[in-house]
Amino acid sequence: MPEPRIQAIEFAKQNYDRFLEELKAFIAIPSISTDAEQLPDIRNAANHLVKSLIDLGFEKAEVYETKGKPVVIAEKRCLKPDALTVLIYGHYDVQPVDPLDQWKSDPFKAEVRDEYLYARGCSDMKGQIWAALKAVESIQTVDKLSVNIKCIFEGEEEIGSPHLDEWIAEHTDLLSCDVVLNPDTGMLGKDIPTITYGLRGLCYFEIKLFGPQHDLHSGLFGGIIHNPANSICELIAGMHDKDGRVTLSGFYDQVIPLSDEDREQFKRLPLGDDFYREQTGVAQLWGEKGYTSAERVGARPTLDVNGIYSGFIGEGSKTIIPAWSMAKISMRLVPNQNPVEIRESFKKYINEHIPEGIRWEFKEHSSNPASLSDRNSPAVKALVKAQESVWGISPVFKREGGSVPIVLTLQKYLGVDSVLTGFGLPDDNVHAPNERLHLPTWQRGIETLIHFFYNL
Amino acid sequence: MPEPRIQAIEFAKQNYDRFLEELKAFIAIPSISTDAEQLPDIRNAANHLVKSLIDLGFEKAEVYETKGKPVVIAEKRCLKPDALTVLIYGHYDVQPVDPLDQWKSDPFKAEVRDEYLYARGCSDMKGQIWAALKAVESIQTVDKLSVNIKCIFEGEEEIGSPHLDEWIAEHTDLLSCDVVLNPDTGMLGKDIPTITYGLRGLCYFEIKLFGPQHDLHSGLFGGIIHNPANSICELIAGMHDKDGRVTLSGFYDQVIPLSDEDREQFKRLPLGDDFYREQTGVAQLWGEKGYTSAERVGARPTLDVNGIYSGFIGEGSKTIIPAWSMAKISMRLVPNQNPVEIRESFKKYINEHIPEGIRWEFKEHSSNPASLSDRNSPAVKALVKAQESVWGISPVFKREGGSVPIVLTLQKYLGVDSVLTGFGLPDDNVHAPNERLHLPTWQRGIETLIHFFYNL
Repeated sequence: MPEPRIQAIEFAKQNYDRFLEELKAFIAIPSISTDAEQLPDIRNAANHLVKSLIDLGFEKAEVYETKGKPVVIAEKRCLKPDALTVLIYGHYDVQPVDPLDQWKSDPFKAEVRDEYLYARGCSDMKGQIWAALKAVESIQTVDKLSVNIKCIFEGEEEIGSPHLDEWIAEHTDLLSCDVVLNPDTGMLGKDIPTITYGLRGLCYFEIKLFGPQHDLHSGLFGGIIHNPANSICELIAGMHDKDGRVTLSGFYDQVIPLSDEDREQFKRLPLGDDFYREQTGVAQLWGEKGYTSAERVGARPTLDVNGIYSGFIGEGSKTIIPAWSMAKISMRLVPNQNPVEIRESFKKYINEHIPEGIRWEFKEHSSNPASLSDRNSPAVKALVKAQESVWGISPVFKREGGSVPIVLTLQKYLGVDSVLTGFGLPDDNVHAPNERLHLPTWQRGIETLIHFFYNL
Repeated sequence: MPEPRIQAIEFAKQNYDRFLEELKAFIAIPSISTDAEQLPDIRNAANHLVKSLIDLGFEKAEVYETKGKPVVIAEKRCLKPDALTVLIYGHYDVQPVDPLDQWKSDPFKAEVRDEYLYARGCSDMKGQIWAALKAVESIQTVDKLSVNIKCIFEGEEEIGSPHLDEWIAEHTDLLSCDVVLNPDTGMLGKDIPTITYGLRGLCYFEIKLFGPQHDLHSGLFGGIIHNPANSICELIAGMHDKDGRVTLSGFYDQVIPLSDEDREQFKRLPLGDDFYREQTGVAQLWGEKGYTSAERVGARPTLDVNGIYSGFIGEGSKTIIPAWSMAKISMRLVPNQNPVEIRESFKKYINEHIPEGIRWEFKEHSSNPASLSDRNSPAVKALVKAQESVWGISPVFKREGGSVPIVLTLQKYLGVDSVLTGFGLPDDNVHAPNERLHLPTWQRGIETLIHFFYNL
């Protein structure tokens, strides 16, 4: 008999086709959290997880109500006394699918083409949740778990988890653990196992500008009022200077300058301009002067328009001055930037630059600081060893451009660190049409997590 | 027996309710020219006009095909030898109705509330066409016409009449006349009969900017590419300087400076800032430094965004860098500005300012110069006298901010001037929700046109 760890990996290999079919069934539930109309599917996805966890032998698995979308909480204890408890974090909600006409297959009917599974949420992050659960299943089918497993799967991550913090604060007893496994960050490439130790924060705002009482004829009234469509462009344009720096007052004040060592680390990452050109399809990159692309994404704050609208955007022409305009604008923050200060600076900028005659409204969608974590904790070491076992090479440590606010929340209320990994790839088209999951990497991910649970 | 002219006016008064019901039936055809799907209704409106003209006793009344939407051509000859021929110009197409939820009644079920008729096209300009036809009917029912009447009613005015010029060039024989009556410009107020002698031209462009191949995750890629949504804002913002002047190179080079006499004329118009504040609902007006509001609208060129779009504009938040952006941008031109030069200057500006890594596309919707006409022609004098008979005061002469490109076309191919008037009011909400027509003014309009035809 081979050792149990090897048996568990063998079980995973033999059951891989079934695991994939199960994942497709999970993906088929269109649990889009942005859209209020999809609430029944959010609940269906939560219920689906509870059923799967009970089938897996979890002693507790329940849907809990929050002030927003429900969370799934589960627990499975092992027989070993004083075993560590690992909390697996995941989100079962997914991004919207528009523009739908750019999908090559139905976003909720997962389709395998070449080595990839194509569907909304396959990479971000239903596939990651499923990999973790299937690792647990593989171990316990052939052996006994030597760690306690808890799960928290939320349904509002893609809209900034507006109700999760409050719920966690009130339910710390359910969640107490030694370490969090968060597989919501990806790998830098198929052959580059990756651990993320830095995350950018996120401020996501929406502004709406109001000009005339209703759309005006641009001939009869053009030239005498400030057009709210022009005005929102002027406000946005003024948020960057010619060197690509954000102009909001104090925006960079708290940013810690990159040390020589930091810059050396960034140079070692396989994130050259060729990589980014290939990922984006953009011939000429652009960004803040004085930094490499990897530094710009990993360690510098940014400001982007995520959406903008005003007036007539249909076919043909309509000669109006629009009554109003709107824009969604988000900022990625780096460690030490304070989202509250950023918000106030943003509002101050608008107040100082809004033209007379235009009224504006503000809405905050997200407000989360960045984080940096310890690269030498026992749990991180267990993951490093697991990745080495599967890939035969050491993982790279990376700062991620995205934000995972739950990391901060769990640190704050449970006092524990998160181990950030995942088996998605940079070209998985997350948040875009034709999201996909590289299946051989996903399979290696399941095996990695089996090793990880044994290594803890 | 009172003189025939008075009898004709009496006939109009007695048949006013029927005229209004007929107008409602004409309005009920949703002949929106912007939308390709409304083509059957465009044709229905043209056919409706032909039938009405035949019922009115026109000898010829026919729908003619163009390369775009059809035109209605009609002729009614009088018995008087060497009578003048008046060509009545109108457009039977109307603006789109979005945002539909802001209409208080169905835009195509005309409803009378207080002294107004509410419906799309009632003021711009089905009501104006109907007023002219009912003036003809009133005269010929009690008397004989002493002028020949021709009509040209087009179906593409609201989209810039892209096929009309070519059609007119090929059918000058059908249209030959001594003067054009164009009732597509309005009055400055209920008690201010108005003749328009200056019109601004129009350049209407659309630009589309392409950045990454598809929407990107703003965390993973924020900071390294130029976001096409930010970029389009920067381009648009740069089109004005801080004094509200358009920055396109050479934009003002051909503009004739206002003379002291011009400025005196503008001062006499009842177009103070209070008027514009009331019309727009904007507390603080804005515009090019050094000019009054009336001058800005009447005699200065402008640039406005008519529509802009990029990325995610639904409920909630989506953290993307959009793959593309678009804007509709139009310029109102004053006499002597050359639309072809303006277009080239616009394209040059974009080419010079577009960031590397962004590709752009250009579309032209309209390209028409401005015009100024003779205030002392016999036809204008006939109209002045008609307005004096109905209102008891002399009309004001006005330069209009809007553009009526047909004036230039008919001048070019037929060698005739247009008399520009109309019975719409500045607060008729043309091109906006709740378009309306002030019915007592409309009735006076019919009477004015009866006088006008007698005065010619």
